[in-house]
Amino acid sequence: MRYLKHLSVLTLGLILAGHALAQGPTEAQLAKSEELARWALEQNLGYEIVESLTTEVGARLAGTEAEERARQWAVTKLKKLGFKNVRVEHFDLPVWERGLERAEILAPYPQALVITSLGGSTSTGHQGVEGDVVGFSSLAALKAADADTLKGKIAYIGEVMTRTQDGSGYGVAGAKRREAAYVAKEKGALAVLIRSVGTSSHRFAHTGQMRRVTSQPIPDGVPAAALAAPDADQLERILASGKTVTLHLLLTPETRPAGRSGNVIAEIPGKKKPEEIVLLGAHLDSWDMATGAVDDGAGVGIVVAAAKHLMDETKRPERTVRVVLFGAEEVGLVGGKAYVEMHKDELKNHVIASESDFGAGRIWRFETRAGEGRVAAAQALGHGVRMLGAAPGGNAASGGPDLLFMRGEGVPVVTLKQNGWDYFDLHHTPNDTLDKIHPADLAHNVAAWLSFVYLAANTGEYYR
Amino acid sequence: MRYLKHLSVLTLGLILAGHALAQGPTEAQLAKSEELARWALEQNLGYEIVESLTTEVGARLAGTEAEERARQWAVTKLKKLGFKNVRVEHFDLPVWERGLERAEILAPYPQALVITSLGGSTSTGHQGVEGDVVGFSSLAALKAADADTLKGKIAYIGEVMTRTQDGSGYGVAGAKRREAAYVAKEKGALAVLIRSVGTSSHRFAHTGQMRRVTSQPIPDGVPAAALAAPDADQLERILASGKTVTLHLLLTPETRPAGRSGNVIAEIPGKKKPEEIVLLGAHLDSWDMATGAVDDGAGVGIVVAAAKHLMDETKRPERTVRVVLFGAEEVGLVGGKAYVEMHKDELKNHVIASESDFGAGRIWRFETRAGEGRVAAAQALGHGVRMLGAAPGGNAASGGPDLLFMRGEGVPVVTLKQNGWDYFDLHHTPNDTLDKIHPADLAHNVAAWLSFVYLAANTGEYYR
Repeated sequence: MRYLKHLSVLTLGLILAGHALAQGPTEAQLAKSEELARWALEQNLGYEIVESLTTEVGARLAGTEAEERARQWAVTKLKKLGFKNVRVEHFDLPVWERGLERAEILAPYPQALVITSLGGSTSTGHQGVEGDVVGFSSLAALKAADADTLKGKIAYIGEVMTRTQDGSGYGVAGAKRREAAYVAKEKGALAVLIRSVGTSSHRFAHTGQMRRVTSQPIPDGVPAAALAAPDADQLERILASGKTVTLHLLLTPETRPAGRSGNVIAEIPGKKKPEEIVLLGAHLDSWDMATGAVDDGAGVGIVVAAAKHLMDETKRPERTVRVVLFGAEEVGLVGGKAYVEMHKDELKNHVIASESDFGAGRIWRFETRAGEGRVAAAQALGHGVRMLGAAPGGNAASGGPDLLFMRGEGVPVVTLKQNGWDYFDLHHTPNDTLDKIHPADLAHNVAAWLSFVYLAANTGEYYR
Repeated sequence: MRYLKHLSVLTLGLILAGHALAQGPTEAQLAKSEELARWALEQNLGYEIVESLTTEVGARLAGTEAEERARQWAVTKLKKLGFKNVRVEHFDLPVWERGLERAEILAPYPQALVITSLGGSTSTGHQGVEGDVVGFSSLAALKAADADTLKGKIAYIGEVMTRTQDGSGYGVAGAKRREAAYVAKEKGALAVLIRSVGTSSHRFAHTGQMRRVTSQPIPDGVPAAALAAPDADQLERILASGKTVTLHLLLTPETRPAGRSGNVIAEIPGKKKPEEIVLLGAHLDSWDMATGAVDDGAGVGIVVAAAKHLMDETKRPERTVRVVLFGAEEVGLVGGKAYVEMHKDELKNHVIASESDFGAGRIWRFETRAGEGRVAAAQALGHGVRMLGAAPGGNAASGGPDLLFMRGEGVPVVTLKQNGWDYFDLHHTPNDTLDKIHPADLAHNVAAWLSFVYLAANTGEYYR
């Protein structure tokens, strides 16, 4: 429809000259996107930003004073880098904080196990709970259990997460994390343990949110924790021997009803169409056990560095480039939801959006989610990304977790799909630290994002 | 040479039959040692033993009830396998036990660090200590420091451990663990932190003993802890920025003056020379943070399986094969020392000894420590080990940590040198669990030890 309208105009040359936005990238712009990508491979700014965030702030759990320090860090950093309209958009949320967490097999073979509370878990009380363990091979098996068999027991769910390049094992394995506490409660269990949702064999338990935090109180499940993989193996070996396993579990998390989080926003105002927005996202909060280097310090470094390079190495973009560092992603995409509520009227002007939130692995696919007939145009924005080795992807991109609600409102998104083979070794563990990021891999990401944002901010039209 | 000699003797058969011990291995015995090794590569008994110990006992710190359970496990297991003269030789020792351990940077960038107390550390008291951190690049640099500069401060020693196949990086890096607390005390420091003595970049702090436990009280150093490598990196980054780092440290270990440990002994009595002993050792205790699979469950599995296979797959050996599972190795070779004291009169009959205590990596060298003129004879015992791929080694074998005192008394030793490239990734961390052992690697070790013990118990003479 829009295309026909443009064709019906005779002065095509003038349109091309004056309306590059309407036409998709010129050869010169495609060449420039390649040139920028090649140049950015040699830069280190993305890594320097992750290093700064993870060193100077460290862990930054949603709604805590540490996340507040992360916002201060971000505002200072973004202003110093020369971004405009740097601001925080605050929102409120209940805040869950970890307490003590201990699990000990009392019989038949007394020993401590490495565990961590799942986000949103209820407390066992300071005495803890003690019960025999009933093992299940999957969440489905627990769901199928007879309620009477779990009265006074502790449920355990095994199920090994599948390691994949595209992270597809996470959705499957994550179900037990999200639902176990509530299903176990229905069955009358005292508490529930799960094998960590993760792929590492190192002795780290993986945390993660159960049900998403919303403005409504979350219904209480039973106390819930994840076992490190070697400890899950250990428990499963003992259960397989047929012996009764008696376990003591202590978890003392607490929830404060009112805390504050916020999204940090910074812009490069567009020169010709400042009202049209290209949104680059990442999330600023992390889990509390590590410095959140891959989740999501890497994303922060990637999108901030890409936007900074655009600012310095090209002319002022036609459209506004908006960097959004979301708050409170980990506890339920609270920042992504707040952004949509606060920017409802403006969403129609969001030309395209993407979030980097999958570590620092290299990009191997460029995916879109554009309107019918606009897919090829959206794919054109991945020209430089493909030059770096990425394959063209389909039109079912998620765009990133914080874009869920925006996507629901019709904002087109792309995903610069990263290699996540190792991501779930580190994700939500104490081991998510700076040393796990390879600077050259991070630079590859910055290069890809720079070439993408250059084209998105200077060429093409809408992608709805 | 041997061929000619064989030909020149008329009554060759009789000599071979009656004086195998005096003559070194016959061709038939060498062939048998190869055959046994090949057969053992296909067995899984060594792994089953490690699995049983690490699952049914778990962590087993010297002098604790858990180590007592390990001895009970060992006695039961060794009797069940058919060994004779299974017994425990007890000894006393002071027992150090870990308490709380927390470190937190208070300024400039508040955050928790992953640490662990060093074995034998004194307590900070339940309030902990607070001080500014003074960084040193090495133990030597701390030693060179002016005493006045550390009053009221917390010393930190960096220095990255070198990863090597032969473990030689450990001795160098270990010096700071052994001495830091005492040197820091001389300089007036409140406490000392060290970069972990280990090679992993995972977020585990490595513990380990400072000064060896003896019957004498150990002089008190300042409270001492090791940082996980990523946390050492973090601290060093902040120190390098030139900012003053203020840190709070809480360590509350306690020492009980009187505890009990013991060596577990089992034998295959020799048929012809029962008074002559071939000693196979490993240590039964572990650090408290993990199930001690590579340190030293693997050694227990290797030597017990090798001796069991000898018992079942060959005729009763000429000499007595004695398996010694030492207690309290980690806290200062206490079991090795006690063994020498309890067996002083018998040491002259110890033909040769060796301990397996370097994980489950494959054997790449066969080393001896034999008397002058006896080196070639001792090297002959490594025939099957070399067939599996090991190189001939020198004559400076340590034999293993618990053999230190025995060696001092003149007992010849050999070392079946394992590949320790990855060993210090796991050693003394919570990550030392069963899943880190590759069953085929463990079987390779059992095969090598079986071929060695077969030759040592049936051929040759003394090696002094």
